Amino acid sequence: MTAVDESTAPVNAGDAALLVQRYGAEPESAPELSDVIRHQLAHRSVRAFGPEPVSDAALDAIVAAAQSAPTSSNLQTWSLVVVRDPELKSRLASLSGDQEFIRQAPVFLVWLVDFARLAQLADRHDHALDGADYTESAIVGFVDVSLAAQNASLAAESLGLGTVFVGGARNHPEELAAELHLPDRVVAAFGLAVGHPDEADTARVKPRLPQPAVVHHERYREDTQLPAVDDYEKTIRAFYEDEGLAHSWIERVLARIGTVRGLNGRERNREALRNRGFELR
Amino acid sequence: MTAVDESTAPVNAGDAALLVQRYGAEPESAPELSDVIRHQLAHRSVRAFGPEPVSDAALDAIVAAAQSAPTSSNLQTWSLVVVRDPELKSRLASLSGDQEFIRQAPVFLVWLVDFARLAQLADRHDHALDGADYTESAIVGFVDVSLAAQNASLAAESLGLGTVFVGGARNHPEELAAELHLPDRVVAAFGLAVGHPDEADTARVKPRLPQPAVVHHERYREDTQLPAVDDYEKTIRAFYEDEGLAHSWIERVLARIGTVRGLNGRERNREALRNRGFELR
Repeated sequence: MTAVDESTAPVNAGDAALLVQRYGAEPESAPELSDVIRHQLAHRSVRAFGPEPVSDAALDAIVAAAQSAPTSSNLQTWSLVVVRDPELKSRLASLSGDQEFIRQAPVFLVWLVDFARLAQLADRHDHALDGADYTESAIVGFVDVSLAAQNASLAAESLGLGTVFVGGARNHPEELAAELHLPDRVVAAFGLAVGHPDEADTARVKPRLPQPAVVHHERYREDTQLPAVDDYEKTIRAFYEDEGLAHSWIERVLARIGTVRGLNGRERNREALRNRGFELR
Repeated sequence: MTAVDESTAPVNAGDAALLVQRYGAEPESAPELSDVIRHQLAHRSVRAFGPEPVSDAALDAIVAAAQSAPTSSNLQTWSLVVVRDPELKSRLASLSGDQEFIRQAPVFLVWLVDFARLAQLADRHDHALDGADYTESAIVGFVDVSLAAQNASLAAESLGLGTVFVGGARNHPEELAAELHLPDRVVAAFGLAVGHPDEADTARVKPRLPQPAVVHHERYREDTQLPAVDDYEKTIRAFYEDEGLAHSWIERVLARIGTVRGLNGRERNREALRNRGFELR
């Protein structure tokens, strides 16, 4: 890779390789990287774990990293359940798309949107909790638990662990809540499997859309996106081919989001959230 | 700080200081830290910026870090608008709680939940987009944009920049959409002000709830939380006192979420999301 103009520092070979993996193409610019950003660029989802446990010292650090993420008005409307018990973990796997790597991972973290802590406080202080009943509060909870979990995932990776997010933890919200004894006003946002990557694990960095598809300047533009998607379609073909998956990103995303069937039962999650105590007014 | 048992390595003085800042108390355990985690622990929200611009090379890296975060089924249902124009930035500040630091920051990033890109694809391929109309899809969008933005914030901090999330970008969703020319099926999740911290900036690391309040093992427990909150109430008093704010976390959170008034108009965000093309079925 060469510098695109005199004001742009050339990227060294290691950094260029990270960017080529992430975008499946030579970068057109020379971003300013740090060691933290290099860790972020190298993220891959790990779905095969070895038997070594995750230490308490690592877990304490992962939680501290999660709690260091920003949180709206310092409300801290999230919590997590650390699941190590093999039988419980297996039942949660069955409820979460029956994915074997959840059983294999030594730790399965279930990330929760949690207004029950504030409800306990409201009860004790004889205070209303009316704001919690609004869609806005569910948004605050899902945003905050996601900021926290992304810090946790990167922290785990920085300790040599592998992770994968599990949206399947939203497949059966009420049954999962029963397994984990979740009180009213608490619902699982997603899971995060954590462990030492198996030696045979072949997961690779997945290329993303070119920046012009997702970055706008001063105003949103629709006309830059389809050309960038068409470039991406060529880029990701080789990646999906190696993974033994259908080749077209466009076909994959339209199958996933185009029909109700692609939601895998999660089409009832408005009802499920209401059953969990989120009125979503 | 001393090691709690023989299996736990002692924490060095620098790491202990990071943990004391984050929890406002001596840590009871000795977490395993990495340089990435040290960056995460040191996070503070910056609300005073100097005039130096944010370079394109930094911005490219921040976006690459954001795109490196996990995304559900590789759907990539988010995008962002980079706002540098002072007049536009000032109008967005007025719509977002009239916070002066937005005008001061050289860059204001508006993070978007975005199903318009997929809608363009569905149109072109004469495919339905029925799944996008469900609450579940809005959850996917808010989760994914949050994972991305947290990577972006940490990336910016690792380059010496300061950031602060702006939930106020949800105060007037339709008006903000008009300013940014957002099409149907796109809505602002939050803003992120980015810039070089002002020399006079005194923002500090804000202590969080003790881990026993937010971490559960194998099952959720309600009985551990209020004692931890009561400890926190003492811890954070000193922090809020220094900031010139009301001293009680409990009073602050109940005022914020206990009544509809604390939502600052965001109680209409279910309607606003529907106006932006999210049916939330």
